[in-house]
Amino acid sequence: MAETDKRAGCAVIGYGGMGGWHTRHLLESDVGRLVGVWDINPAKNELAKENGIKAYSSEEELLADPEISVVTIATPNDSHIPIAIRAMRAGKNVISEKPVTLNSKLLREAIAVSEETGRLFTVHQNRRWDCDFLMMKQVFESGDLGQVFEIESRIQGSRGIPGDWRGHKPQGGGMLYDWGVHLIDQMLQIVGNRRIEAVGCRFENVTNKEVDDGFYLDIFFEEGLVGHIEVGTHHFIQLPRFFMSGTAGSAVINDWRDRAKCVINLDKTEYEVKPVVTAAGMTKTMAPRSEDTLRTTYVERPDPDVHDFYRNFIAATRGECEQLVTHEQMLRVMKVIDLAFMSGKAKSVIPFDI
Amino acid sequence: MAETDKRAGCAVIGYGGMGGWHTRHLLESDVGRLVGVWDINPAKNELAKENGIKAYSSEEELLADPEISVVTIATPNDSHIPIAIRAMRAGKNVISEKPVTLNSKLLREAIAVSEETGRLFTVHQNRRWDCDFLMMKQVFESGDLGQVFEIESRIQGSRGIPGDWRGHKPQGGGMLYDWGVHLIDQMLQIVGNRRIEAVGCRFENVTNKEVDDGFYLDIFFEEGLVGHIEVGTHHFIQLPRFFMSGTAGSAVINDWRDRAKCVINLDKTEYEVKPVVTAAGMTKTMAPRSEDTLRTTYVERPDPDVHDFYRNFIAATRGECEQLVTHEQMLRVMKVIDLAFMSGKAKSVIPFDI
Repeated sequence: MAETDKRAGCAVIGYGGMGGWHTRHLLESDVGRLVGVWDINPAKNELAKENGIKAYSSEEELLADPEISVVTIATPNDSHIPIAIRAMRAGKNVISEKPVTLNSKLLREAIAVSEETGRLFTVHQNRRWDCDFLMMKQVFESGDLGQVFEIESRIQGSRGIPGDWRGHKPQGGGMLYDWGVHLIDQMLQIVGNRRIEAVGCRFENVTNKEVDDGFYLDIFFEEGLVGHIEVGTHHFIQLPRFFMSGTAGSAVINDWRDRAKCVINLDKTEYEVKPVVTAAGMTKTMAPRSEDTLRTTYVERPDPDVHDFYRNFIAATRGECEQLVTHEQMLRVMKVIDLAFMSGKAKSVIPFDI
Repeated sequence: MAETDKRAGCAVIGYGGMGGWHTRHLLESDVGRLVGVWDINPAKNELAKENGIKAYSSEEELLADPEISVVTIATPNDSHIPIAIRAMRAGKNVISEKPVTLNSKLLREAIAVSEETGRLFTVHQNRRWDCDFLMMKQVFESGDLGQVFEIESRIQGSRGIPGDWRGHKPQGGGMLYDWGVHLIDQMLQIVGNRRIEAVGCRFENVTNKEVDDGFYLDIFFEEGLVGHIEVGTHHFIQLPRFFMSGTAGSAVINDWRDRAKCVINLDKTEYEVKPVVTAAGMTKTMAPRSEDTLRTTYVERPDPDVHDFYRNFIAATRGECEQLVTHEQMLRVMKVIDLAFMSGKAKSVIPFDI
C-alpha cells in the first residue's frame, strides 16, 4: 500500500464464516485496510492465500506486526477474551465478534485490560444497522404509539442451529449467545436509558439437547414496559419480526424485508360496537374496530451503511470520537444473558440488581 | 307449551349480555324450552317481559317451579357457586357461565353438592365449538407436524375490558377469568390427556390496575410441549390467532375467520443454502427455505353446531350419556388459573402438583 494510505491497518483472527465477512468488508472499506488473517486451522490459512489474502504463520506473528492497528476476532465464542487480552497487551485495538464472551465476569476482565493498556475494545454489534430495528427504534422514539408497554422481537428459522461449534456448550454455542446477543442489544437501543428491573427466560431444545436452539426472553423495564425476545430455529412459518404495543397504537414489521406499519387509535367513540358472533358465541371485547376510528401509517425503510461501524471505531482509535458500542452497553447485554441463563435454571424471574 | 313437548324446561338467572345469549339460544333450541328468567336488577326483568319472556319475581320462585329442569347461571362470576348450590339443592341441573368460580376450592364445594344431590353441574364452555380451535385440534391429532413442542393461542382486542363488573376484582373481573378460561379449556382439549407439569404467567395492566386486562400464560406439559396463551385488550394490530410448531412442520390461523395453514418440511436436503444478506450482515441460520423443500396444506373450516352443548347436557340429565364438560376438566382448568395467579405474584413458574 502507498505511504499516503491513511486507512488503519486491520487483521482478522479466525477465517470462518464471519471472518470471511470481515475480510470482504475490509477489502471495500474506506477507513480500514486488510493486512492479513490468521486461523488456528492451517487449511483456512491456505484458503486465505488462495483468496489473495496474506496469512500469518501464528497469532504471535500477527500481533507483532506494527502495521496492524485493529484486530478483529472471529473465532469460537469461548476464545474471544483470551485473544482480545493478548491483542490489547500487544498494543492493538480490538473488535470482537459477538458474543464478546460467555459471561459478564470475563467481560469485566477484558475491559480492565482495555483501561489499563489504553487500547480500545468493542464488540461487533453490526445489527444496529438492520433496517427493521432502525424503523422500530424510530417508531418508539416518535411517541406516536403513546406509552409503549410491550415490544416483541422475533426471529424464526427452520434449519436448527449450525452443525459446527455453535452446537456445543464449552465453545459458547446456542441461540442466546448467537442471535440473542443481537436482539438484546437492539432492544436496549430501542428503549434507550430505560432501567431494567428483571429478566425472565425459558429455553427450547428441539434439535439440540446440549445448548438452546431457541428461547423466549422477557426483559422487564421500568414503567411497565416489557421487551420480549424470541429466537426459534425449527419454524416453517414465521410470526412477525417486530410487534409493538402502546396506549395509543400498535406497530408491526411482518418480514425483515418489509416497512413498518403503524395503526393509531384516533380515540373516536364507537357508539355502536357490533359484537362478533362466531360459531360458538359472541364477543364485544374482541370485536374488530371500525376502520374510521384508526389511522394507518408506514415507516419507510432507511438506507443504513454498516461501514459506519468500522468508520466509528477507527475514528475512536484516533481519539476523534467515542466508540459507538460502549463498555457499559456490552456489560448490560452480557448481564441480561447471565440472568437469562439463571432464570431458565431457576424457572423464575430474576431481579436485575442482584 | 303442549304436553307432548319433550324439551327440558330451562330457566336463566341473570339477564345481561350472556343471559340474553342463552335466552335467544334456548328459544331456537330443539332440546330446551325457555320457561323464564330472573335478574337481581328489576329493570332487567322488565326488559325480559318486554321481550316476551316470563320473569320470575325472585330466585326462590324460579327454583320452586317444577317445570324447570335446567338452570343456566349468567350472573357476575363471584355469584355462580352460591346460586348453583341453591339450585342443585332445589333439584335443578345447573349450567354455569364461565368461569364457574374464582378458585378450585369453591369449585370442589359445588362438585360435592352435585355428587350429594345427584344433580348435574357443568360450565358453559361454548368455545369448544369455535372453528379455529377445532381446526387446530385436528392438526394436532393428525400427527402431520411430528412432535409438537409449542402451541400458541392468542386473542387481541382493542377496547380494554368491559366497563361493568368485569373491571372489578371482588366480582371476578379481568381477562384470565374471561377469555382465559375458554382458551385454557381449548388448549387442554387440543393436547388431550397430556400431563401438566407446571404453569407460568405474567399479567398486563394497561387500562385497569385492579384486574388484569391481558396476560401471557405458559402451560408446561410433559414431553417438552408448551401451551402458550395470550390475551390482550389494547392492540390495534393482531398477531395470528393460533400458531403451532412441531418437529415436522408448523401451522397457523391468522384470523379466526380463516382456515388453518400447515407447512410441512419434506426433509429434502438443501445442498446450497443461500445466506440472507441484510443491510447489516448475513445469516444462514435464518435464511428462508426454498419452496420445493416444503409442502403447504390447508384445513377446511368445519361446520360445528353449538346447540350440541345443550343437546349433550339435557341428554345427560336423562342419563343417556355423560356430560361433555366434566368435573375433572372443570377442576383442571380452574387449577391452571389458581397457579397462574400464584405465578404472577411469585414471578416464578409453579409446579402443577403442589
